[in-house]
Amino acid sequence: MLKTARFPEFQNEEVQKKAYDILKAHDIDHLIVIGGDGSMRGATSLAKLGMSTMTIPCTIDNDMGGTQYTLGFDTALNTVVDAVGRIRDTSNSHERVAIVEVMGRKAGHIALKAGLACGAEIVLVPENPMPLHDVCRHLKETQIRGKEYSVILVAEGAYNSGDVKAFIKEHTEFDPSLTVLGYLQRGGGPSAFDAILAARMSEACLNLLMNGVDNRLLGYIDGHIRPISYQEAELLDFPINEKDYTLLSILSS
Amino acid sequence: MLKTARFPEFQNEEVQKKAYDILKAHDIDHLIVIGGDGSMRGATSLAKLGMSTMTIPCTIDNDMGGTQYTLGFDTALNTVVDAVGRIRDTSNSHERVAIVEVMGRKAGHIALKAGLACGAEIVLVPENPMPLHDVCRHLKETQIRGKEYSVILVAEGAYNSGDVKAFIKEHTEFDPSLTVLGYLQRGGGPSAFDAILAARMSEACLNLLMNGVDNRLLGYIDGHIRPISYQEAELLDFPINEKDYTLLSILSS
Amino acid sequence: MLKTARFPEFQNEEVQKKAYDILKAHDIDHLIVIGGDGSMRGATSLAKLGMSTMTIPCTIDNDMGGTQYTLGFDTALNTVVDAVGRIRDTSNSHERVAIVEVMGRKAGHIALKAGLACGAEIVLVPENPMPLHDVCRHLKETQIRGKEYSVILVAEGAYNSGDVKAFIKEHTEFDPSLTVLGYLQRGGGPSAFDAILAARMSEACLNLLMNGVDNRLLGYIDGHIRPISYQEAELLDFPINEKDYTLLSILSS
Amino acid sequence: MLKTARFPEFQNEEVQKKAYDILKAHDIDHLIVIGGDGSMRGATSLAKLGMSTMTIPCTIDNDMGGTQYTLGFDTALNTVVDAVGRIRDTSNSHERVAIVEVMGRKAGHIALKAGLACGAEIVLVPENPMPLHDVCRHLKETQIRGKEYSVILVAEGAYNSGDVKAFIKEHTEFDPSLTVLGYLQRGGGPSAFDAILAARMSEACLNLLMNGVDNRLLGYIDGHIRPISYQEAELLDFPINEKDYTLLSILSS
Repeated sequence: MLKTARFPEFQNEEVQKKAYDILKAHDIDHLIVIGGDGSMRGATSLAKLGMSTMTIPCTIDNDMGGTQYTLGFDTALNTVVDAVGRIRDTSNSHERVAIVEVMGRKAGHIALKAGLACGAEIVLVPENPMPLHDVCRHLKETQIRGKEYSVILVAEGAYNSGDVKAFIKEHTEFDPSLTVLGYLQRGGGPSAFDAILAARMSEACLNLLMNGVDNRLLGYIDGHIRPISYQEAELLDFPINEKDYTLLSILSS
Repeated sequence: MLKTARFPEFQNEEVQKKAYDILKAHDIDHLIVIGGDGSMRGATSLAKLGMSTMTIPCTIDNDMGGTQYTLGFDTALNTVVDAVGRIRDTSNSHERVAIVEVMGRKAGHIALKAGLACGAEIVLVPENPMPLHDVCRHLKETQIRGKEYSVILVAEGAYNSGDVKAFIKEHTEFDPSLTVLGYLQRGGGPSAFDAILAARMSEACLNLLMNGVDNRLLGYIDGHIRPISYQEAELLDFPINEKDYTLLSILSS
Repeated sequence: MLKTARFPEFQNEEVQKKAYDILKAHDIDHLIVIGGDGSMRGATSLAKLGMSTMTIPCTIDNDMGGTQYTLGFDTALNTVVDAVGRIRDTSNSHERVAIVEVMGRKAGHIALKAGLACGAEIVLVPENPMPLHDVCRHLKETQIRGKEYSVILVAEGAYNSGDVKAFIKEHTEFDPSLTVLGYLQRGGGPSAFDAILAARMSEACLNLLMNGVDNRLLGYIDGHIRPISYQEAELLDFPINEKDYTLLSILSS
Repeated sequence: MLKTARFPEFQNEEVQKKAYDILKAHDIDHLIVIGGDGSMRGATSLAKLGMSTMTIPCTIDNDMGGTQYTLGFDTALNTVVDAVGRIRDTSNSHERVAIVEVMGRKAGHIALKAGLACGAEIVLVPENPMPLHDVCRHLKETQIRGKEYSVILVAEGAYNSGDVKAFIKEHTEFDPSLTVLGYLQRGGGPSAFDAILAARMSEACLNLLMNGVDNRLLGYIDGHIRPISYQEAELLDFPINEKDYTLLSILSS
């Protein structure tokens, strides 16, 4: 891993040059970068210096340009769905609302897709966060309609989940339980989907390099692996799907 | 569930007529069928009599015409991958070969995709079963190359897994362990992928029916849900992917 | 469930009398109470009024008098161990400390036993909470000795885990990740140990009642089920084991 | 691991002498053996030659003399319980009987305890195998009483599970599904119970050796770790509990 996102100094051109020189000194002809946005930017910098690179999208947050899917996302979703299932197992008369904070950085992909998968009653995403007063109103209505238990998924980028808990406690009769999944979402063995796609991407990566194509992000688009230039990848955005949000509202009502 | 595959008598036209009459007598306007090939044939029969139907593909075997994916397949794959991971955990000097029998009826979808996901050394599928003498030769070569442990996935439609075990024991120095996953593959909570796709298919199903479209299979093709006429679905075959088999050979070598 | 802990009004003698009358009006001869301290107190109150009761200890917190074990504790421990295992899977150069908050009310049983099971580097229990300055010193020493990753289990009764995170961030170079397991620990299917002990306790309960013994807590002591009078149960305390704490220090060093 | 059970030649005194000499040549003062019966016999042989040894009981089969519990048993039980839970998830009108073969060598510990934990309708153990005609009669009665689904746990030492399947198919209207768990039972991360007991046994082992006590099996008896001489361990048998079998009959009726 380049871990460029973690090393802000990699934005420094001298550092990039040094990295390039080290790679060349070790006779490394091609660099396969596996990571998220920051990693791709690192690959882009090295490509500009003349390095032959390829980037495989890999972050649980699914928040990269140029691809509809990043490796790890399905694994993380399964972890969230399993966790919410366990939380739903337990309910009692006083704590009928469970808040579950999930990751996703500035995007609501994990929250929204996991919400669909586990039938969350409310999902709070950074792209369009429901005001907390609306959350409280929604909770009351939900329980009036007979639901015994409401699960609120909070994307880390939308709200501080502790604040959501405090707000609901103050403005309703509910005292929500709070689970913060944190790095739990980043572990565990890969799901079948991720393991298969990783194998396919590795194969595509080598095939492309051996055929002289490089400096691409391996985008996953409509079920196919597509090599996308870094420039295009930066511009090609796949935001959360408005339709998913609508479907969630229907399911949870 | 119609469970038509389980009720051969449903192939009888009188039985179909009776079913149709019962549905009509209960003022049922639309019938949403969730199941595999047999269920779709049942839906087709009722459609011919005038019933408005829709079929959602659902079988762990992924062996239906008209769709690249059937609900339940991803869940089953994750179960197989988890099981093989546990089997790999244990190895000892004498039992260096593990045979794992998986389901799939007459198709090798589960075996092949799970093989890719868990890096099985050998996968035996009904579409093109490797002769058992080749399996033995392959095992010997694999271990000469330094692999300590080989996993053989046997699709139920390819061989009797007990026979494979006996054959290997007779023709090599290995005494393989045997695991038959059986109905284990049909249980457990749905994976995130299956839960989300089920929600999307339910939505698509209702939208289509409300717009006057019916008697379709909801095919999943290249990441999109496509309504396919029953007739077309019968003809549109998605056999196991030759490329997957090649990729598996590369990975396991 | 009596859920007496949740209904403070059950401490009111009139309410108790009313409950007793309702039970008698329904010709209920024996009441088997399954729960924690509060439930046992409820059973004690009804017993004083003449009801024949028996209490089966059941709370994930393992914090009842009269028994070394309460049903649910083993299941919760397995959940925590699985979660910490996943959190350990992921580590990187900047976030080398993971804080995991576990339940346990005013006792450190879950934190301490789970800490032993997953090899936590630091466990903070309410019975004897390590000062946070010592935690910081310990973290630095641990990493100097070459450990790449430290897990801190915080019992909910010991500290606010958010405060622990903030303190460490302020006083060290570490920026700990935070996971709050919450009600996740109360769900999931019962572990084999809990399921078997539940079966044995049910059997013991019926045998005792049919032999005229009642108003007892079914204590689990040194591997055996022992009927303990409510009075004795209140007095017989099984605090966290000093030896476990010592063993943990040895393991994590 | 000595893997003595796997190396029959270790029963040869010359081989034992050679092993002893190698240990001494490497200045090894104490040998901690982790394993089952065969491993303990190996330790006993080396002890007779003058080696200082200690044996920690570790086999999923729980079939060692001198201890009520062997490390790994609880982990294996949880795997079986999880598997049976998944198998129970799926049932249909024709396949209402599921056969699940579990390990255990010549003992029924896994089958019996897992049967209690998952509420198996029938458990076949080697110590006292129910005749197959009785199994068939029992199945018919069970379903007459209204149970939709029966699970039969077959210990590998009791019957060939394939034979049980064939017999039931021939003598009843049921066509049982078959799952053979095999080495699946030997993998996975350790359960909390096993991990904690392993830590405690390691500690006890070192304390004893440092205090001059050696050549013992660390027996687990009534919740306590007890050093047992190898001689005594060979004689002290803990067969399957008749009471467990009775309790199982009550639960499954």
